[in-house]
Amino acid sequence: MKTILIQLDTDPLPSSFDQVVAVDAGADQLLSYGGVNPDNVTGLVHGAIFTRGVPDLKHTAIFVGGSDVAAGERLIKKVTKTFFGPMRVSLMMDSNGCNTTAAAAVAFARSRMSLTGKRAVVLGATGPVGIRAVQLLAAEGASVRAVSRTLDRAQGVCESIAAHSPDSVLEPAAAATPSDFENVCRDAEIVIAAGAAGVCFLQENTLVQLPKLKIAIDLNAVPPVGIADIGVMDKAVEKSGILCYGALGVGGLKMKVHKQAIRQLFQSNDQVLDTRTIYELALNTLGVTK
Amino acid sequence: MKTILIQLDTDPLPSSFDQVVAVDAGADQLLSYGGVNPDNVTGLVHGAIFTRGVPDLKHTAIFVGGSDVAAGERLIKKVTKTFFGPMRVSLMMDSNGCNTTAAAAVAFARSRMSLTGKRAVVLGATGPVGIRAVQLLAAEGASVRAVSRTLDRAQGVCESIAAHSPDSVLEPAAAATPSDFENVCRDAEIVIAAGAAGVCFLQENTLVQLPKLKIAIDLNAVPPVGIADIGVMDKAVEKSGILCYGALGVGGLKMKVHKQAIRQLFQSNDQVLDTRTIYELALNTLGVTK
Amino acid sequence: MKTILIQLDTDPLPSSFDQVVAVDAGADQLLSYGGVNPDNVTGLVHGAIFTRGVPDLKHTAIFVGGSDVAAGERLIKKVTKTFFGPMRVSLMMDSNGCNTTAAAAVAFARSRMSLTGKRAVVLGATGPVGIRAVQLLAAEGASVRAVSRTLDRAQGVCESIAAHSPDSVLEPAAAATPSDFENVCRDAEIVIAAGAAGVCFLQENTLVQLPKLKIAIDLNAVPPVGIADIGVMDKAVEKSGILCYGALGVGGLKMKVHKQAIRQLFQSNDQVLDTRTIYELALNTLGVTK
Repeated sequence: MKTILIQLDTDPLPSSFDQVVAVDAGADQLLSYGGVNPDNVTGLVHGAIFTRGVPDLKHTAIFVGGSDVAAGERLIKKVTKTFFGPMRVSLMMDSNGCNTTAAAAVAFARSRMSLTGKRAVVLGATGPVGIRAVQLLAAEGASVRAVSRTLDRAQGVCESIAAHSPDSVLEPAAAATPSDFENVCRDAEIVIAAGAAGVCFLQENTLVQLPKLKIAIDLNAVPPVGIADIGVMDKAVEKSGILCYGALGVGGLKMKVHKQAIRQLFQSNDQVLDTRTIYELALNTLGVTK
Repeated sequence: MKTILIQLDTDPLPSSFDQVVAVDAGADQLLSYGGVNPDNVTGLVHGAIFTRGVPDLKHTAIFVGGSDVAAGERLIKKVTKTFFGPMRVSLMMDSNGCNTTAAAAVAFARSRMSLTGKRAVVLGATGPVGIRAVQLLAAEGASVRAVSRTLDRAQGVCESIAAHSPDSVLEPAAAATPSDFENVCRDAEIVIAAGAAGVCFLQENTLVQLPKLKIAIDLNAVPPVGIADIGVMDKAVEKSGILCYGALGVGGLKMKVHKQAIRQLFQSNDQVLDTRTIYELALNTLGVTK
Repeated sequence: MKTILIQLDTDPLPSSFDQVVAVDAGADQLLSYGGVNPDNVTGLVHGAIFTRGVPDLKHTAIFVGGSDVAAGERLIKKVTKTFFGPMRVSLMMDSNGCNTTAAAAVAFARSRMSLTGKRAVVLGATGPVGIRAVQLLAAEGASVRAVSRTLDRAQGVCESIAAHSPDSVLEPAAAATPSDFENVCRDAEIVIAAGAAGVCFLQENTLVQLPKLKIAIDLNAVPPVGIADIGVMDKAVEKSGILCYGALGVGGLKMKVHKQAIRQLFQSNDQVLDTRTIYELALNTLGVTK
């Protein structure tokens, strides 16, 4: 029996990235949908749960993606609510790679040192990956500054994370100019840049100006990159005592975790792979024990 | 040469149900389209008939689906009109499972007794499956009461069926409350509930109140079911002398018929699998000879 | 590793024709998108170039299609611009079969005689295939009359071709009635009819009235055909000394070239198969050396 991955994407055109990864992870058949939302998803879920006998439902799975994390979360809530009893399939949420990318980035940092009590800064914290990076760093006990162009949006991210994890130590911050960005990173031990493609936060020769920085991770693969001192292929490259990771350097682990998560979906019909479980996969892949 | 099933769905998002079944029926490749209508289908049909040599056209087939039976019928009319000479592929229409589900339900009833002259009631008769159930029961010689919330819509169904089969014995009826539904079933020997997901027509302990009832079939798989006394897995389960079938009980045959129909499409390039031929498939599968 | 063809179609529903051909060309997996334009394509290209290592990018390719040649050209420009360094995949443009069909038609003419200095007429010159036929004939040194219902549109085609190939000898012409069409073909040695399905340009017994005509090619497969004297299956059939080709007669070569082009895409990650290179493929397939 063929494995079928039903890709439910909240964007009008379902991500080609997620489709290629699903193919490479070995999913036999993709059913890809764009423009999916809580109002039109019910029939698609019924098609997933009513077409194979319960013992075979593990061969069908649902992947929720798209560029809008909040839309993805609303969608996965509705999908979960449509399941009943054993009539369910495993599902994974990775809107815009938020979970797999953030998981890989934070897992690399975690593989180098305990994050408890560390000062971390996430640039581009309101984007899909940024939100998850803030959430995972905070869950590891780091004190996290979430940086956005406007304080309002940064505050929104902090509040939505605090709502689920009240123990998180979070601080919203606004920054718009190169010197703003440098200032908000002044006391950071870890910096993760998770901005949009083509946005440069920290210009050349900035990293060396940040006295406490130990780990710098840039998740932007499209030039100009987000941290100019980091090469897109860097993977634990030491520069002035700072361990640097570029987008493709992190990307290898992200891809491994993404594929492993897809494969894991087909092991039973009752899994929900969320930010936390995907992060565990990333830690396992790096051999990090907690 | 790979078998290719071109799914033309009248809904914006092409049915995942129909896609999973097509995969499980062994179609090698699906080309799935949503939002298909008579105005945009011509190019898709040309793509089906102009891409392979005539002897190989049997490896390509068209499946028309979607939640709107009338739209599906308009579409299949246009598809058929676009064919010419040997430039055609086999096609099947099963909007919202109307043909395969109705065929399976009526075939189960027919496998138990001749339907000629029997009094049948279809609840939810204006839905995709309901219309087909009325049509097949009438074609078997039953006298059929088609029940809807409004008399107008019930009348519309009866008239559209009578237009093609003037010998049909049909009676429209309106019902909205639990006691209405019980009343319209009072003299029924066969009841088929074909309502929307979540609509309960006959509440608990109603079946035993219907003195002439021999066969009761509920096609709603999502709780609350359409006939509360029937379990979703029931398949010829006798309750107070009534043979009961639930949605998943019927579903096994529906799925077999659906898959068999898909496979049959690829045996030649000139078939049209409509309500009648799909019903014959269902009878054959049950070993019923007419 | 599976070969993946990403079909970017500028029409709302991605061409089924192009999908069937891609399957028959051996592409393992299709990712098909409709309604693609320069504004929404960037993410799809990133999904193509960021999902596999550079040495494996040759297993992913992009196909640009749709009924609107100008839209396809704008799209391929944006796709190309999104590539950077080795982060690219091979791509092919064949909006509405313009390149493969025009290439096959002109290659058949070229296989029979040098086209340099010949008088050629393209009927339906403003359609996707017509534009390419004008362009290829002109590039072979023919003097080409581009015929449309309105002079404005014919002029537009000539100007757009002349902008890239200033040495082209092009003449726009308008024609609307059977006698108009006969008149614009009066002095032609080669006529290619590339109109819309169902449009007949030259009525029965017209070819024999054209004194200089040596090669007549009709690319319309749907009756009524574009040149009534030509049978849809004709392939170098001589009628009154004129070599005739019908749509399916040309179609065999078109399909071979189309499939060969798809297969060639997967040989490296840096190819751009445009009108010119696809025409070379067609000449090679016919064994024509320049």
